[in-house]
Amino acid sequence: MRLARFLPLFEHLAAPDRGSRTDDLIAGAITAILLVPQGMAYALLAGLPPEMGLYASIVPPFVYAFFGTSRALAVGPVAVAALMVASALGHYAGGDQALWLTGAMILAAETGLILLVLGLFRLGALVSFISHPVLSGFTSGAAVLIMASQIKHLTGIDLERGHALETLHAFVQQLDQLHVVTLVFGVVAIVALVLGRQPLVRLLQRLGLSARAATLASRTAPLAVVIGSTVVAALLGADNAHDLAVVGAIPAGLPWPSLSFFAAEGWLELFPSAVLIALVGYVESVSVAKVLAARRRQKIDANKELTALGITNMAAAVAGTMPVAGGFSRSVVNFDAGAQTQLAAIITAVLVALVALFFTAWFHYLPNAVLAAIIVVAVAQLIDLDTARRTWAYDRADGAALAVTFVAVFVLGIELGLLVGIGLSLALYLWRTSRPHMAVMGRVPGTEHFRNVNRHVVETDPSLVVIRIDENIYFANAAQVEEYVAQHLTAMPEARHVLLVMTAVSYIDASGLEMLEHLEEDLSHADVTLHLAEVKGPVADRLAVSRLGERVANRTYLTTDLAFCAITGDSESN
Amino acid sequence: MRLARFLPLFEHLAAPDRGSRTDDLIAGAITAILLVPQGMAYALLAGLPPEMGLYASIVPPFVYAFFGTSRALAVGPVAVAALMVASALGHYAGGDQALWLTGAMILAAETGLILLVLGLFRLGALVSFISHPVLSGFTSGAAVLIMASQIKHLTGIDLERGHALETLHAFVQQLDQLHVVTLVFGVVAIVALVLGRQPLVRLLQRLGLSARAATLASRTAPLAVVIGSTVVAALLGADNAHDLAVVGAIPAGLPWPSLSFFAAEGWLELFPSAVLIALVGYVESVSVAKVLAARRRQKIDANKELTALGITNMAAAVAGTMPVAGGFSRSVVNFDAGAQTQLAAIITAVLVALVALFFTAWFHYLPNAVLAAIIVVAVAQLIDLDTARRTWAYDRADGAALAVTFVAVFVLGIELGLLVGIGLSLALYLWRTSRPHMAVMGRVPGTEHFRNVNRHVVETDPSLVVIRIDENIYFANAAQVEEYVAQHLTAMPEARHVLLVMTAVSYIDASGLEMLEHLEEDLSHADVTLHLAEVKGPVADRLAVSRLGERVANRTYLTTDLAFCAITGDSESN
Repeated sequence: MRLARFLPLFEHLAAPDRGSRTDDLIAGAITAILLVPQGMAYALLAGLPPEMGLYASIVPPFVYAFFGTSRALAVGPVAVAALMVASALGHYAGGDQALWLTGAMILAAETGLILLVLGLFRLGALVSFISHPVLSGFTSGAAVLIMASQIKHLTGIDLERGHALETLHAFVQQLDQLHVVTLVFGVVAIVALVLGRQPLVRLLQRLGLSARAATLASRTAPLAVVIGSTVVAALLGADNAHDLAVVGAIPAGLPWPSLSFFAAEGWLELFPSAVLIALVGYVESVSVAKVLAARRRQKIDANKELTALGITNMAAAVAGTMPVAGGFSRSVVNFDAGAQTQLAAIITAVLVALVALFFTAWFHYLPNAVLAAIIVVAVAQLIDLDTARRTWAYDRADGAALAVTFVAVFVLGIELGLLVGIGLSLALYLWRTSRPHMAVMGRVPGTEHFRNVNRHVVETDPSLVVIRIDENIYFANAAQVEEYVAQHLTAMPEARHVLLVMTAVSYIDASGLEMLEHLEEDLSHADVTLHLAEVKGPVADRLAVSRLGERVANRTYLTTDLAFCAITGDSESN
Repeated sequence: MRLARFLPLFEHLAAPDRGSRTDDLIAGAITAILLVPQGMAYALLAGLPPEMGLYASIVPPFVYAFFGTSRALAVGPVAVAALMVASALGHYAGGDQALWLTGAMILAAETGLILLVLGLFRLGALVSFISHPVLSGFTSGAAVLIMASQIKHLTGIDLERGHALETLHAFVQQLDQLHVVTLVFGVVAIVALVLGRQPLVRLLQRLGLSARAATLASRTAPLAVVIGSTVVAALLGADNAHDLAVVGAIPAGLPWPSLSFFAAEGWLELFPSAVLIALVGYVESVSVAKVLAARRRQKIDANKELTALGITNMAAAVAGTMPVAGGFSRSVVNFDAGAQTQLAAIITAVLVALVALFFTAWFHYLPNAVLAAIIVVAVAQLIDLDTARRTWAYDRADGAALAVTFVAVFVLGIELGLLVGIGLSLALYLWRTSRPHMAVMGRVPGTEHFRNVNRHVVETDPSLVVIRIDENIYFANAAQVEEYVAQHLTAMPEARHVLLVMTAVSYIDASGLEMLEHLEEDLSHADVTLHLAEVKGPVADRLAVSRLGERVANRTYLTTDLAFCAITGDSESN
């Protein structure tokens, strides 16, 4: 029982809704079939040898299985993190392949440490500073970047790493170097992979398979494409006869634990990149984990996920591989294939380990163009136009943040693009709250309710301006609030009273308090009295210890209506 | 009349409360008497020759007089901006005195341009992102830095520019170089200047002068100290006989317009410093202008002030001098001396011009230690412990922001310190709104009012959880809101309805909307119905076009009470 508190796996295995072991077995096998080619492809995307992708698909899912609170999350190499690794290591390691390996391990170790520390201090809330539109724009932008990065593998044109626009320009200029055999392998693989999704499912259903069986069968399509293309390439001897780039020799065996990266240099240099990889990896993992948990009315614990993913990434580093996260599409496949607990992940890890031990030689003739096709088809699903459209319809500012993040990732690169997006969304929120909505209010006749004079038919009193402030009063908007009150007083020269309705004010900072104190003083010099209504408990507690609180103590009312009656009653008796 | 719209001076001169011309004359003369030594001192503080301080006290106040909307603001060289100029030029010009002059003009031109552009686009609100506590901590920290920078002039110990702590260390190490004559002049001047304030006023009043006459007379104390010390130093021949540092030869004459700085290099390098000088100078000017305007029930226009200070600084650049602003203590002196309009500033400018033309030779023997004493006594008033104490008492976070800014200015330097303060206050606000106050509500018996169950005796219904969210729902707090609802539902297993009271929600961003849509879906799967009450107009407008708005359209109520009655009526009939 005590073990179950630290290792949710045992809790899940004992849960009443734990499902059947067979389901986990099938799901684990299906995920492994998807993961072997994807893992190798993402390692290539990260600029690492393909076996690193296999290693990242063995130890991390195995470790996460014990610590994770999500029952269906499939942890392993993911496309966006792989691109971020490539971007970070490009600066760090340049052309030195050994340094490239060390750097990947340092990134994994740092990512793990950051997540673990955030989890121990229960700072999961920090990651909520990436807004959904920014995340959506970032993911779509990263997907386009990733697809652009695969052009060289799909066409055989030797393009250097660089900004997306530079790459595009170089591509057009060197179009004469187009390698037709490579292109044929790549295009055929893309077409086969796309047909292997919904079209294949529909075809199999028409042939009499059940929906579930058809879907499961279609999951093997990537493996079929890999085997088919490898066989064809081997039969043609395409690597020698046609100069086709193939995966080549992959050393057989399992990752051997090593702590050598601890002593390596570059921890400080790679730290900022690790922060971003940790952030993006965690947000992606938790969003998919939440979605899947909700489908079965289960719960995940965001802070425990931080710890689990932290330990998992540190394990990835010790296993000599790159940072990992919960992949979106892979987890959905795992879930749809019937995964009930993380037992499925353990099955996946064991199967991938068997491949790494005994079958790596089989991938010698696998064309790089086919791995690129797998990447392109996988990340194409990350481009989310629907969210962009809905966000724009609901809120122009959020829509703009999404669009700017997308463009920034594309133009400035993946790290800077993400930072621009985060900064922009924070700035937009501050800008918005710095121009608060305020309204002059009147009483709905015959009731105790007050509403905006511009939206409702209400009664007012010429001696009293009732103003509702729809925002916390803080330094960025204190001057605007003061200005608004002054304007409306000028427009109502008969007014002798101002009533501020504080229903929407949850917080007044020191600048806001200073403004209110000045306002009260200014108004009293002009023979106008300031009143407050509906001050929330926490705000009232603070005001009580301030000079303003003392001065307006007997002019503070529980409700707007009580204030209205007291004030207009007063002025009538004057 | 049309002129008056662009040149508020003419409006002020025609205003019914324009006061007497004699008042302006006296105020202008008093301010000039204060300004001549202060101007030279602040030029030295900025690392510039003393005549630059005089020039900055002639053209800028003259230009501001026509464009400014404040009637009493005294524009000229100010201590904090002078220190910021010194800090910026230290990196830019190093030991090259000519470059130091050019740099000061570029800074003035850029400061002017920045303010002008902000004014033209009516972006005055941007400057409100410096909160009062940060400004207070910054000003106090800058005052301490400035005082520390004068130690070398007061003691004759040759200290290099550097961080405050380094300077202190060097000072202690080189204490044997202490120059006694310099120290005597400095200390006597400080004592005389301090006694020349309140103690002199009280003495003169006891001798029979009116309070106003005594105050005006005390304003001449700095000039008396300057004259007295210059005479003593000249009689002793202290510069040769005792190696006392004196101001030396100041070229007589007026500034000659020049645009040579336009072609100089360094505009880009100095731009970030100019942004900060513009920000700080504008905020200081507007705060004092507001305070003074309020005392006479007048108004200033923040956006026109941007334009006015922009033009004024551009004029300072053309006149070959450094950035200027409205000085706090000098404006108060001007106001207290009776300034009714900016005519006083024109008088000041003319008098300082006469000094620059005919009397500069008189300052040859003025000891630098006396100018340092003037700076120390002037900036000592900027250290504001009272605000620090009150801010801490009202709000720990704001108090911490003030303290951190103070320390950061002292330790990291003036520019970085200010940026740390601004960044911290923005982060604190976001952090605060990311952990919103939420409350479970109940009905105050016999009324339509709902209050926090923890603060009031209220009635609740076991089938219904009423939750008030006291913050905008946006990306940084969406997860917390979801979590809070889930927690309270778990605590009330009988609940079949959740009512969210939106009185304090002025804005729901796309992330917030997505969370609410998921929440509504999740709840409905668990047979719990989501209701909304008191949705504000602007929020309702947006929700109307969303999927959530459609789904809860007939579960949205005008008031909490209507919702309560409808829902609990429903559940009773079940």
